Amino acid sequence: MCNFFFVTFRLFNGKGRRNLRVKRLYVLQLCAKDKYLDLSRTLTLFTSHLYSFCILSLSFTRLPHLAGTEQNLKYAEQIMKEWQDFGLDSVEMVPYDVLLSYPNKSRPNYISIVDANGNEVFNTSLAEPVPEGYEDVSDIVPPYSAFSARGQPKGDLVYVNYGRTEDFFQLQRQMEIDVTGKIVIVRYGKIFRGNKVKNAMLAGAKGIIMFSDPADYCADGVQPYPDGWNLPGGGAQRGNVLNLNGAGDPLTPGYPAKEYTYRYSFEDGVGLPSIPVHPIGYHDAIHLLKNMGGKTPPNNWKGALNVSYRIGPGFIDDFKSHAVRMNIHTINQVTRIYNVIGKIRGALEPDRYVILGGHRDAWVFGGIDPMSGAAVVHETVRSAGRLISKGWRPRRTIIFASWDAEEFGLQGSTEWAEDNAKLLQDRAVAYINADSAIEGMYTLRVDCSPSLHTLVYNITKQIASPEEGEEGMSLYESWHKRDNWTNDRDAPRISKLGSGSDFEAYFIRLGIAAGRARYTKNKKTERYSSYPVYHSVYETFEIVEKFYDPSFRRLQAVAQVRGGLIFSLADSLLLPLDANQYADSLRKYAQSISKPVGLSNNSLFIHCVSSDSLFSAVENFTIAARGFHERLETLNRVRLVNDQLMYLERGFIDPLGLPGRPFYRHVIFAPSSHNKYAGESFPGIYDALFDIENSVEPQRAWREVKRQISIAAFTVHSAAMTLTPPA
Amino acid sequence: MCNFFFVTFRLFNGKGRRNLRVKRLYVLQLCAKDKYLDLSRTLTLFTSHLYSFCILSLSFTRLPHLAGTEQNLKYAEQIMKEWQDFGLDSVEMVPYDVLLSYPNKSRPNYISIVDANGNEVFNTSLAEPVPEGYEDVSDIVPPYSAFSARGQPKGDLVYVNYGRTEDFFQLQRQMEIDVTGKIVIVRYGKIFRGNKVKNAMLAGAKGIIMFSDPADYCADGVQPYPDGWNLPGGGAQRGNVLNLNGAGDPLTPGYPAKEYTYRYSFEDGVGLPSIPVHPIGYHDAIHLLKNMGGKTPPNNWKGALNVSYRIGPGFIDDFKSHAVRMNIHTINQVTRIYNVIGKIRGALEPDRYVILGGHRDAWVFGGIDPMSGAAVVHETVRSAGRLISKGWRPRRTIIFASWDAEEFGLQGSTEWAEDNAKLLQDRAVAYINADSAIEGMYTLRVDCSPSLHTLVYNITKQIASPEEGEEGMSLYESWHKRDNWTNDRDAPRISKLGSGSDFEAYFIRLGIAAGRARYTKNKKTERYSSYPVYHSVYETFEIVEKFYDPSFRRLQAVAQVRGGLIFSLADSLLLPLDANQYADSLRKYAQSISKPVGLSNNSLFIHCVSSDSLFSAVENFTIAARGFHERLETLNRVRLVNDQLMYLERGFIDPLGLPGRPFYRHVIFAPSSHNKYAGESFPGIYDALFDIENSVEPQRAWREVKRQISIAAFTVHSAAMTLTPPA
Repeated sequence: MCNFFFVTFRLFNGKGRRNLRVKRLYVLQLCAKDKYLDLSRTLTLFTSHLYSFCILSLSFTRLPHLAGTEQNLKYAEQIMKEWQDFGLDSVEMVPYDVLLSYPNKSRPNYISIVDANGNEVFNTSLAEPVPEGYEDVSDIVPPYSAFSARGQPKGDLVYVNYGRTEDFFQLQRQMEIDVTGKIVIVRYGKIFRGNKVKNAMLAGAKGIIMFSDPADYCADGVQPYPDGWNLPGGGAQRGNVLNLNGAGDPLTPGYPAKEYTYRYSFEDGVGLPSIPVHPIGYHDAIHLLKNMGGKTPPNNWKGALNVSYRIGPGFIDDFKSHAVRMNIHTINQVTRIYNVIGKIRGALEPDRYVILGGHRDAWVFGGIDPMSGAAVVHETVRSAGRLISKGWRPRRTIIFASWDAEEFGLQGSTEWAEDNAKLLQDRAVAYINADSAIEGMYTLRVDCSPSLHTLVYNITKQIASPEEGEEGMSLYESWHKRDNWTNDRDAPRISKLGSGSDFEAYFIRLGIAAGRARYTKNKKTERYSSYPVYHSVYETFEIVEKFYDPSFRRLQAVAQVRGGLIFSLADSLLLPLDANQYADSLRKYAQSISKPVGLSNNSLFIHCVSSDSLFSAVENFTIAARGFHERLETLNRVRLVNDQLMYLERGFIDPLGLPGRPFYRHVIFAPSSHNKYAGESFPGIYDALFDIENSVEPQRAWREVKRQISIAAFTVHSAAMTLTPPA
Repeated sequence: MCNFFFVTFRLFNGKGRRNLRVKRLYVLQLCAKDKYLDLSRTLTLFTSHLYSFCILSLSFTRLPHLAGTEQNLKYAEQIMKEWQDFGLDSVEMVPYDVLLSYPNKSRPNYISIVDANGNEVFNTSLAEPVPEGYEDVSDIVPPYSAFSARGQPKGDLVYVNYGRTEDFFQLQRQMEIDVTGKIVIVRYGKIFRGNKVKNAMLAGAKGIIMFSDPADYCADGVQPYPDGWNLPGGGAQRGNVLNLNGAGDPLTPGYPAKEYTYRYSFEDGVGLPSIPVHPIGYHDAIHLLKNMGGKTPPNNWKGALNVSYRIGPGFIDDFKSHAVRMNIHTINQVTRIYNVIGKIRGALEPDRYVILGGHRDAWVFGGIDPMSGAAVVHETVRSAGRLISKGWRPRRTIIFASWDAEEFGLQGSTEWAEDNAKLLQDRAVAYINADSAIEGMYTLRVDCSPSLHTLVYNITKQIASPEEGEEGMSLYESWHKRDNWTNDRDAPRISKLGSGSDFEAYFIRLGIAAGRARYTKNKKTERYSSYPVYHSVYETFEIVEKFYDPSFRRLQAVAQVRGGLIFSLADSLLLPLDANQYADSLRKYAQSISKPVGLSNNSLFIHCVSSDSLFSAVENFTIAARGFHERLETLNRVRLVNDQLMYLERGFIDPLGLPGRPFYRHVIFAPSSHNKYAGESFPGIYDALFDIENSVEPQRAWREVKRQISIAAFTVHSAAMTLTPPA
């Protein structure tokens, strides 16, 4: 491990725990004296990073800063200025003009129940109750589904559980309910909301309402915010409902959204839903659900609302003449967004890039999402800047990014990836993502490329556990104790990367080794989706300070993981990437290609589908990886082997992309076609096998399975070749 | 220039001219004594390369060696063995199983004129008269159109000149003749035959006959072979009629055709024609043309056959009840082909590849195509081997390739490019093509990436002119004198790369700097297409020895250019690639985007199409290129700038490919959509503008023009970024 790495760790390791109320008061007093009257400027007065995280989070969460708004530009300017002050070699603001989506300020969005005469007998609320202390804040965008189609569809309501593919299958195939021309209502959770919308569209629905059920957004024994961290009944989840499949700006797929760039018409834009969509909280949802008629839902479709809701279509006898009407007036508009890009020039390999990026835009205050992550980036820049001032310079170039418009479909990060694709393809060593640093209070969660597994373990062994009562225990041990990778190996669990954050274009499109780390909940016992207040107005600084991380030590631990990865990747003589781990993962994925779709090996056999070529390719890769790492022992050409390591991840890219998804080009990993948040291994094979037993053209479908196995085998062979001696 | 380069030049520069008849006799005597009884083994007995070219050409042109035949495998084995003996570090045979196409041996292909009763009143010949000295040779494949659809369509005949897009436009729009359900007859020449077939299919024809007209295949005052080098009346041009657009094997587009690779069904194969196609010579063509009826052709449609042919449809009154019937039974079959790949490991940069490749398969003997080129590769390997034996080793790895199945759609080279795409993308510095070394007797012809212009000039200045009476004159001077680039600059003309040979996948798909060089005819005075005996049985060793290059000094000069490029690219400390030349070419192409389609700038203006963004991108590129080369003066990081130079060409690749042509991904150059042989600059823009004034959806068409300009501007910006300092 390099020197810098240790220095950074020392800087990061604040000692002890103070009374945060006192600390905060002190900070506020200092601010009052500060001539700039700007909280963030007081940062430099502190040496402890625990303080810094607190102050940073506080500083950047006072005001709503939605992508495309003036406030988010102001924060960008502030970040740029501070990064310059911290001592980066260059900092620039990089704008793009992308399609964003906002509610129409003069015509609010809402859902009504209308009677036979067309009278609105119930309307959903137009906004969330604003939390204490923020009453005077303006520009809080009400809950809405960004990029919803406009319209006022009216009709019968049908409940489709989570709106997953399997829920629609069950509705159509077992309950034999057709939703064509109906409005569907689904609960939030389990999968990315855009997939719910797509499923509703495919089923023929003319509108979709999404609600937060307490079963999915409240933890047992926890009070709603502000008394606890559960979602209040008046809260609702904002979010985009695009199906971009990695395209970035919907109007400029494949190219950066610059001034001169050709833009598709809205009609031809990528992934824009064709039906109205709207999110509501559970207080409003009760009114829609309690009078529903039709069939009884299966037990696993029942949420925790105290209503005996049914599936529909339509309402119970008393309300039979009633209908639901959506009133959606959301406006799509091309809007300027701003990334902030800072660089430290590498001393010895300036043309090798290690990237730490996280978004800045928030739906409202962004207390958790994203500012708990943005604070980590900011602190990392400050630490690096301090080292630079002491004469240090990393071996490779480090790039820091504050992305814009992540919440609108990863647009800032994707446009920059498109803009710089040529350079990144040739030069990028790794991308570390820095979205929300916390989504729970239990332990560490890491999703990353298999090539980073070993580095993650090595780094976490050198970080202290942030948990009370675990003094002297490493983060690795604390994590291992809580989330062991039982089936496969005795080590903390590391998961596949899915999507839903800014690493997507770097990993899935460009094939750059990537990873993310955050503090998470206990998945075994906590069944709610993401975290309860996700994307609501209640994501405040206070919820972090009061509940999630009062000491800011969890934030600090996450910062140490992210920063440790960046500094190790940028400064190690030999790149800390592990091809053997990739070989292990490939074997595991190859062995289970038929499992996730519930198909037996026998049914593959019946259709003459052999995975032999894939197993053989994996075996070949394993041998190549082992040979490669053995040769490292007698190393005499560092650059050459580092390039082999850097290009290993690129070896899994198929320039043709996955079927119908030209921007998802990684043959080993892609976001699930049924849930963008989840990662799928061998996604081409998975999608070919999915629901194949109901295929209308089985022969063609089984041929596609064979084709996908052939592509996977070739790609693994191809990646193995990158590890063999070059000539 | 490196040492090796000079050594090589010395080796290449044979002195004087001997009596070749005597020399050949001597060689044959030696062979008789040789215990291997193999002509090519006598090579090592000679030191003069002039002899070598002669012997090599002779040795590899004794027997037909069509792709997929045993003889072509034997030659591959011989080449492999000899390259090993020459001292390469490794030589391997790399097989692929690709779709080839052969006549049905038991049912010959021919064209008939049938009378009203269905009697065949005339049949075209089944084979070409075999040239003297080859009477006992078996396995001469008769003239056919490889990959023709099978069938026996019967119908009226329509003559469509060269079958170019503009010829069909003229037929349909001005003469108002509809060829739907008719058989068309076109003359060979001007464009790639596959484009003629595609045009006929698009026009609705049910079959197409292609003939060689003396106007296109005979030079004035020259006798038919064997008394001269003109095409005899019984000769006809073989060739594939695919429209692959760079896909390689039609059944495995995008992936190498290995044993395990998924294959599309024949119906889904890429670029296979759906109608029968057949080639005939002019003696046969007379019979079809002389009785044609219908309209009189315009003057420029009239060839040199002494018949007053008309356009059709159908025959003159005397033959009105007659029809033409095609009888085509050609069989497509998956067949094993073999590339031979030899390597010299680079001493200092083993992971940087410089490639010299040319094909080995021939339609029959391959006297010109390809063995005049294969001899060059063989001699280059021998020269390199000799230097290796003296202790030399190039800085970078050199890869030599003997491709198979070029004649069937560049299949050997494309499959290997697909197989090794990942490595090539990361590591390939340049690809130099070695197809036929001669197509005329006049001067040098070079087509290459603009980045190679300067190197080509520098090298040709150090090579002696091969022409008699030009002792002491350089090849550059000789070439300059004969083909000055008058309009643009006072230097010998260098052209754009089109396609039709094995560089295609390397340059157009992968973005590797590429070039080709050969001896050519005088385009100003010699109007025949390619060379008269092209793809006929008359392409023998003797035609080279007697007419094209009796002293073999032209072959030697071409070898010096190709070898010089390879050795300079492999051994120079600083890569000899020139970004400034690229800037010049980009400016030239950008200035003329509306010219080639005959549109005025005014019509662009009317449709609000601005090229400003493109000009601005070119300007930006020019500045970046100039800055880059200026910084080279104070160079301290050779690897870094060499990588920038290497990746410059890659900077022009758009992973999304051109519209409808996913494997043509170079935004600056692509084979013309109307003639695969020709290179088009800014092909996306060109295709969008082509025939736009007859577009059925003009608004959509003009939007596409804007989109393509935007893509071109982005790509040029992107390439410019690769030249700026890396951090």
